[in-house]
Amino acid sequence: MAKDLRKSKFATELTGVEINETHAKKAVEIGLVDKVKSLHEGIKNTDIVIIAIPVDKELEILPVILDGISENTTVIDLGSTKKVIVDSIKDHPKRKNFIPAHPMSGTENSGPDAALENLFKEKITILCDHEDSGPQHLALVEKMFQSLGMDIAYMTADEQDHSTAFVSHLPHAAAYALANAVQSKEDRNIIFDLASGGFRSTVRLAKSSGKMWHPIFRQNRNYVVESLDVYIKHLQEFSDCLKSEDDEKLWELILSANKIRGILEGENPHFVKNEEKLVKLYTK
Amino acid sequence: MAKDLRKSKFATELTGVEINETHAKKAVEIGLVDKVKSLHEGIKNTDIVIIAIPVDKELEILPVILDGISENTTVIDLGSTKKVIVDSIKDHPKRKNFIPAHPMSGTENSGPDAALENLFKEKITILCDHEDSGPQHLALVEKMFQSLGMDIAYMTADEQDHSTAFVSHLPHAAAYALANAVQSKEDRNIIFDLASGGFRSTVRLAKSSGKMWHPIFRQNRNYVVESLDVYIKHLQEFSDCLKSEDDEKLWELILSANKIRGILEGENPHFVKNEEKLVKLYTK
Repeated sequence: MAKDLRKSKFATELTGVEINETHAKKAVEIGLVDKVKSLHEGIKNTDIVIIAIPVDKELEILPVILDGISENTTVIDLGSTKKVIVDSIKDHPKRKNFIPAHPMSGTENSGPDAALENLFKEKITILCDHEDSGPQHLALVEKMFQSLGMDIAYMTADEQDHSTAFVSHLPHAAAYALANAVQSKEDRNIIFDLASGGFRSTVRLAKSSGKMWHPIFRQNRNYVVESLDVYIKHLQEFSDCLKSEDDEKLWELILSANKIRGILEGENPHFVKNEEKLVKLYTK
Repeated sequence: MAKDLRKSKFATELTGVEINETHAKKAVEIGLVDKVKSLHEGIKNTDIVIIAIPVDKELEILPVILDGISENTTVIDLGSTKKVIVDSIKDHPKRKNFIPAHPMSGTENSGPDAALENLFKEKITILCDHEDSGPQHLALVEKMFQSLGMDIAYMTADEQDHSTAFVSHLPHAAAYALANAVQSKEDRNIIFDLASGGFRSTVRLAKSSGKMWHPIFRQNRNYVVESLDVYIKHLQEFSDCLKSEDDEKLWELILSANKIRGILEGENPHFVKNEEKLVKLYTK
């Protein structure tokens, strides 16, 4: 994001705050940021503070940041869970300076070397509970995400946690469990040798850092459990069809799953305004 | 495969057999094959017959092909299941002409337009029950796969069906069920808009053709059910940790899943000869 904010000329000066010294040095070295400062110094006299840390750490640091910023500073976060976060600062006198944001793009890699250009282009950012933020802060953040080439969806924090549980947290949990299931049954050399693109693709998210994902699962516990229950039900149905040789039903399950191609490859225009739910979700 | 066999100069003349007339025309048009013939004509006076059709159709056509070829023709298949196939022709007088093969590389797309160059390079082909094939046929097929840049693993048909259930069939079943689970709970516009690279990657295999995958699941029914049972057990364990707030165990599950990175990114050399299982699997 730092790379692209600089490239788009939205940001002219970038200051990093980083406890890992190797990462801090590297970030300056490769030009992600101009300098690295302490949290206390870093948030002084800044137009925008962007919080991109594990969501459990954010819970500790967000109030400290809101306490330390000036009246006009805008604060956004990029975390994957929102309800616990917004609830934790709902009575803070600078609540209006904060915009809870979730850009739906990332990789399984971490650290300054993992920075990719154009990661956010043509992707969606979710902004949550926008009525609780000051209009000037909201306008600045919208401009920032638009400078990255992103579209914006407006949801409540609770809606975002539910949809994100299914579309992002469940795929991560599914990949972690798949990695464990396969490792429990097959020799690592066999896995290495036989792993085709299909297995690699399905299991890719299992490489994701526990420091980032463990707190996400914890903060979104109930919706992740709901999504896992739904998933397990569908897997059980698939397995039951095989066991009972109900091959007709098995065929229907595959055909129904195939419809995801049409959805992902965009047969349907998004931002359709004439469907009630979307109007609610996607317009301010 | 046709593209690369021609490029590597292993094949000088390629004849296609195809019931879909549009695909047949297209295959000639884009130079995948030189001409298209009927099955009966196509397998006459040919050095190698490569069968790349759904495994249920293969079950019907393999004996017809073995009946129709000359004494010296080598027949290979590229299907994902092996035990049912080899059992079906075990007493055929031309059993020795047949090599059951499974190159571990593919995409979720079908038809002549889906052909990719270098799809097989640096990937593994499994050859099954090689003692049941004639040495001259085996040598020719090894040469063919090596011309594609592939390594070869030798297994029994039963071993290949078991390992492939975990490393390939299970990821497909998992993706089909994930696609169905998410579609059952989320509006298609929401899925389209929020689908990040992570969701797309995990669910990619759910686009795979039912014509190809339905018969694979049926022919490898027992091992796929076993793999689904193991997977569901791991998902349930993940969900139970969340429900019971056993966050320490949840952390361990994530760390253990993370080990798949080391396996997939090849910290371990493959073809290690000093482990008993691998000697058995990977040497003739």
